[in-house]
Amino acid sequence: MSSSFGKAFTLTTYGESHGAGIGGVVDGCPSGLKLDEALIQRELDRRKPGYAGTAGTTRRESDTVHLLSGVFEGLTTGTPIAFHIANENQHSGDYAGLAALWRPGHADMGYDIKYGLRDYRGGGRSSGRETAARVAGGAIALVLLAACGVSVSACATELGGIPASEYGAPDPFGAADRPYAALCEEVIPVWEKLTAAARSAGDTLGGVVRVEARGVPAGLGEPVFDKLDAVLAHALMSVGAVKAVEIGSGREAAHMRGSEHNDPFLPPEKSGSRPQAPHMASNHAGGILGGISTGAPIIVHCAIKPIPSIAVPQISVNRQGEAVELRIGGRHDICAIPRIVPVLKAMTALTLADMLLRQCRMHAVQEGTV
Amino acid sequence: MSSSFGKAFTLTTYGESHGAGIGGVVDGCPSGLKLDEALIQRELDRRKPGYAGTAGTTRRESDTVHLLSGVFEGLTTGTPIAFHIANENQHSGDYAGLAALWRPGHADMGYDIKYGLRDYRGGGRSSGRETAARVAGGAIALVLLAACGVSVSACATELGGIPASEYGAPDPFGAADRPYAALCEEVIPVWEKLTAAARSAGDTLGGVVRVEARGVPAGLGEPVFDKLDAVLAHALMSVGAVKAVEIGSGREAAHMRGSEHNDPFLPPEKSGSRPQAPHMASNHAGGILGGISTGAPIIVHCAIKPIPSIAVPQISVNRQGEAVELRIGGRHDICAIPRIVPVLKAMTALTLADMLLRQCRMHAVQEGTV
Amino acid sequence: MSSSFGKAFTLTTYGESHGAGIGGVVDGCPSGLKLDEALIQRELDRRKPGYAGTAGTTRRESDTVHLLSGVFEGLTTGTPIAFHIANENQHSGDYAGLAALWRPGHADMGYDIKYGLRDYRGGGRSSGRETAARVAGGAIALVLLAACGVSVSACATELGGIPASEYGAPDPFGAADRPYAALCEEVIPVWEKLTAAARSAGDTLGGVVRVEARGVPAGLGEPVFDKLDAVLAHALMSVGAVKAVEIGSGREAAHMRGSEHNDPFLPPEKSGSRPQAPHMASNHAGGILGGISTGAPIIVHCAIKPIPSIAVPQISVNRQGEAVELRIGGRHDICAIPRIVPVLKAMTALTLADMLLRQCRMHAVQEGTV
Amino acid sequence: MSSSFGKAFTLTTYGESHGAGIGGVVDGCPSGLKLDEALIQRELDRRKPGYAGTAGTTRRESDTVHLLSGVFEGLTTGTPIAFHIANENQHSGDYAGLAALWRPGHADMGYDIKYGLRDYRGGGRSSGRETAARVAGGAIALVLLAACGVSVSACATELGGIPASEYGAPDPFGAADRPYAALCEEVIPVWEKLTAAARSAGDTLGGVVRVEARGVPAGLGEPVFDKLDAVLAHALMSVGAVKAVEIGSGREAAHMRGSEHNDPFLPPEKSGSRPQAPHMASNHAGGILGGISTGAPIIVHCAIKPIPSIAVPQISVNRQGEAVELRIGGRHDICAIPRIVPVLKAMTALTLADMLLRQCRMHAVQEGTV
Repeated sequence: MSSSFGKAFTLTTYGESHGAGIGGVVDGCPSGLKLDEALIQRELDRRKPGYAGTAGTTRRESDTVHLLSGVFEGLTTGTPIAFHIANENQHSGDYAGLAALWRPGHADMGYDIKYGLRDYRGGGRSSGRETAARVAGGAIALVLLAACGVSVSACATELGGIPASEYGAPDPFGAADRPYAALCEEVIPVWEKLTAAARSAGDTLGGVVRVEARGVPAGLGEPVFDKLDAVLAHALMSVGAVKAVEIGSGREAAHMRGSEHNDPFLPPEKSGSRPQAPHMASNHAGGILGGISTGAPIIVHCAIKPIPSIAVPQISVNRQGEAVELRIGGRHDICAIPRIVPVLKAMTALTLADMLLRQCRMHAVQEGTV
Repeated sequence: MSSSFGKAFTLTTYGESHGAGIGGVVDGCPSGLKLDEALIQRELDRRKPGYAGTAGTTRRESDTVHLLSGVFEGLTTGTPIAFHIANENQHSGDYAGLAALWRPGHADMGYDIKYGLRDYRGGGRSSGRETAARVAGGAIALVLLAACGVSVSACATELGGIPASEYGAPDPFGAADRPYAALCEEVIPVWEKLTAAARSAGDTLGGVVRVEARGVPAGLGEPVFDKLDAVLAHALMSVGAVKAVEIGSGREAAHMRGSEHNDPFLPPEKSGSRPQAPHMASNHAGGILGGISTGAPIIVHCAIKPIPSIAVPQISVNRQGEAVELRIGGRHDICAIPRIVPVLKAMTALTLADMLLRQCRMHAVQEGTV
Repeated sequence: MSSSFGKAFTLTTYGESHGAGIGGVVDGCPSGLKLDEALIQRELDRRKPGYAGTAGTTRRESDTVHLLSGVFEGLTTGTPIAFHIANENQHSGDYAGLAALWRPGHADMGYDIKYGLRDYRGGGRSSGRETAARVAGGAIALVLLAACGVSVSACATELGGIPASEYGAPDPFGAADRPYAALCEEVIPVWEKLTAAARSAGDTLGGVVRVEARGVPAGLGEPVFDKLDAVLAHALMSVGAVKAVEIGSGREAAHMRGSEHNDPFLPPEKSGSRPQAPHMASNHAGGILGGISTGAPIIVHCAIKPIPSIAVPQISVNRQGEAVELRIGGRHDICAIPRIVPVLKAMTALTLADMLLRQCRMHAVQEGTV
Repeated sequence: MSSSFGKAFTLTTYGESHGAGIGGVVDGCPSGLKLDEALIQRELDRRKPGYAGTAGTTRRESDTVHLLSGVFEGLTTGTPIAFHIANENQHSGDYAGLAALWRPGHADMGYDIKYGLRDYRGGGRSSGRETAARVAGGAIALVLLAACGVSVSACATELGGIPASEYGAPDPFGAADRPYAALCEEVIPVWEKLTAAARSAGDTLGGVVRVEARGVPAGLGEPVFDKLDAVLAHALMSVGAVKAVEIGSGREAAHMRGSEHNDPFLPPEKSGSRPQAPHMASNHAGGILGGISTGAPIIVHCAIKPIPSIAVPQISVNRQGEAVELRIGGRHDICAIPRIVPVLKAMTALTLADMLLRQCRMHAVQEGTV
């Protein structure tokens, strides 16, 4: 099932950019958690165009979520939680000219070849709009995580090649409501100038997003194929514009020596009948060793490619294989940042919620609470 | 199932470093493909210690594979293909001192906390030895891929921070039998010197591996969560030492403009009743757009962390949470390169075989060959 | 995922009896099939109360289905097909008295113990209303099956212990629009009298439903665990009131000798390069041998328990474990027949569509149409 | 994956009748359980030819199991538990004449059509020998279940149309070591006479097996598609000769009235902060209501068809579609009873172990033991 993610806590999504709407079904969420539409809406609002920063389009979408099942008297019932977000403000006409054209950098060509036909309006299923359902599903995962003491944040650390860390002190947990979801306040005017220049040139920009999860207990993740970092890489790379996923030291690990990269273990504060996770003097591992969480913060960086819908003319072909010159109109973002930030946060939350439930079995049997 | 990979073409593995052996079961392989032990053994031999280059340990393992089922009169029968590789040459005594210690950079701590106990001999299930079963399973996937015109190669492009491309012309398809599986011949003496120096210092090195698949038909990969790049990232990141996965332009995409990054489409050579994949003037996409293969070569880079088993003393803790000084003896590799190279090739092959079978359904129904 | 069925053609459902509505997502349906709401509505109408026969409740539900995604210009796009059926005509008040009571024969107790809480309105997720989403999903499967030459029918062969076959000649394909979906016309007045008597007595009745699939190609079904009959049994037993599933000769097989039960093979009419399925002189196997379809009609019988909501007083307990006398009011069916008939047809269709797509891979590789 | 069963506690099997051997991999078994080869061997011995009763063949197979992984110092480690049973005493020559023939009642035809080729020696993958891997996997599930207070038994209640209950008092828990695994001692001579007569006539017999699980906590099973009875039906029907699965009252439910069939709830003995399962005055439900266990014994009956390998001549066809007369030689069982009895016990255990682990998540989150 390509439209489902997770084995114990599962999100299945549906919907296209210009159909009736988009939505999803969360299956496997335990009962008894407080959940309402407002909680989900708060996360959804963060990915709205124009929520933060000037890199967004001028479209206005209300993106109002409706819960359809699985919640009774304010609590999850343990049964599937379905939600729907109706599409609004659709200018299908903007896309009619693109029906037979394949836009470079887009999924148009792949869909036409894979399926023999495609819903060409606004990207159809391959539209960035699809990610709203991930954010809604992720909001439900965040509720489960919060109940278990886990928090997730995401922020932009780089835009158009300009790293935020050179302009101010990192403040990842303040990023959510900051323009561009930027790592620091000081870089914002620099990024604004950069974005404005790209817009004038009819061009677009890439960036880097950093995701962090705190409070993740040691022991999550499965050996071999479902290592925590492997499933996180799957989750994050499944978001359209992501071209690289780096865990902890990431790409830099290739240049380091073992004596530098190994994070020394220091004695844990508390002890117990079960072994306790140690302190770690550094965190090159990014909170994951051998595919299993170490108790240290989980830190992942994602490289985001520039938005492929550019205003300057491009060389392309149509479905018939004929060369064409393409000019993309319509309203488009300059950079996937900041709108992609809550999406990557959501995918991280979905992964952790799934891994948390998969690990429960182990403890329950060991501790006789089956 | 954490020990299974793939939905249509599935590999399930088992085994520890120092038990009876390791092995696996491939389920979903179509019938009628030529397969024998020699084909699998050839791939396995490439990951043996000492096969190529001096970065390997001085251990000698015969790693002889035995087919247990699923092949009759030299052809696959469509039923599960099981294989077993017996463990040999085990010095369990080398590890006895490590039973209660947690080695930095290793999975020891995570396993102890996750499971409450662990097989401490040679890393147990978290041993690099586990990857032999992946290579054997991948060899079966390669047979299926070859029957469909797809080839996969892997090579080392960087070791200890020294990129091969600065020393000679890239020759990825000649790499398999070259020391270090190096991208070019010329870099080998440089890497040898580097490896020798690290060995003398009791230290270890990281590197970068490049995987390429040619002949992949356009249209593989599923929208949304099982994008081809997402599943590849899952597959590759699930290999122990990998800290970053980059598709096509990867990390560089973050610095590029849309007008640079978009790969222009050029008219395809042939035409047909179904749309044909265009030529692409460049391949920043790495052969995947919107999660679906474009027909261009699929190119992925993986950053490999330095081997955590270093000879110099390290600060650590034991299961009881007490501070200890740790000295790791035994025979260890200096760098995961070249032995990790065939493992990453295998994981790529397993991913592509799975995606190929998942796509078959679509065509079969459309073309009435159900 | 307990709310998903199928591995290649998947239906995920959601919804409770008295929430916003019920619905589902079909994932894996190939592109290019003609589909609209009317096709789905036609199947849904067959399970409406009062559609056929007098065994139904006097409730009136419009059960109008809305397609939310996956269809463009009248054709499936290959992406998830979501649908929603809004709840109407809800008398939640009817059930308020049952909040703390556990009705014998119902899922109330199990939900309360499993989840610690439950949506008690009309059975919540365990309501028979949930099956409407199965019928809608099954209607989509039927479209795929029809494109491949497979048809599915279902009918009632027994009600309240009275077998239809003793009253008239079997006519399974005429059953769909007949009262009670009865196997023959002649039994209808007998069943009507029986139903009326049960209603007067405040009691309820069971029955037997027969499902038949024609045109199923030989070769569907997987060896070992996912035998076609095993997956059918799973599918059919997952419908609330089903207590027994019998394939072909079913329960009678236990009394037969091998020489009676074996279906003799007769030469097939046509021949080809691939082996062809033989004629079979009898069909005790019910169209399945060794878990794989034989090309003969697939025939399954399901025993249906009497509706547990009876009007006569019952002994029960409440959530606190106290003894209570229970009187169930509200509007209830006398027998699950005929409303369960289209549900069992739908589950059969979902199973066959899934198995058909799983088998495609095999042929596609063998015939080079990958 | 057709060769895997279970979602949380998973068994993957491989192997053919006449290849190197058969075996399997159990994934998802919690760590810390006592397990050794003797425990598995004990269950395996029960399905050996000639273990109990005279219905078995005169073949002698040692069926010795070897554990390959997942157990360290006598305890499960939480990682995959692989086991292998080498094939011995193979008379492949017995089957050579059957290479191109399709035996009525067997899977030969289906395999040839599905795969285009087949391993014809002794039934290959479709051989009853495949079930030894299920019994070994089930033995591991039984260890988990025992740790959670659940026991499973299976016995024969009917053979060749003669029900045991007419000859003596039912004693299901004494059946395991009794000839035919019979429900009572008294029926044994009757069944022996029947079996001898069938053997003389060159014919074979069917029967009925009853499975019972005690100590299953209320709350296991998932709503909708993965109801406990649905997954049990899947598990049991996946065993070759099973033609019907009946839960509790089963086929009889169709004749009963609601007032008869409903099991009255009586107050539970103990109370607690969570709702407690009531006593039930009867158990027509067979321990499952709405797909969820009630705490009462789970009771299932399986109808077993007569062995299709009969000694009398049969009409059949060959791969080329030509009519042939078939005479089956070799050593064959007269009835699948008693050898199928431990197989059905094993499938029940695998289902319950899976459901137990799937339910753990719910409690762990609710009780804060994540």
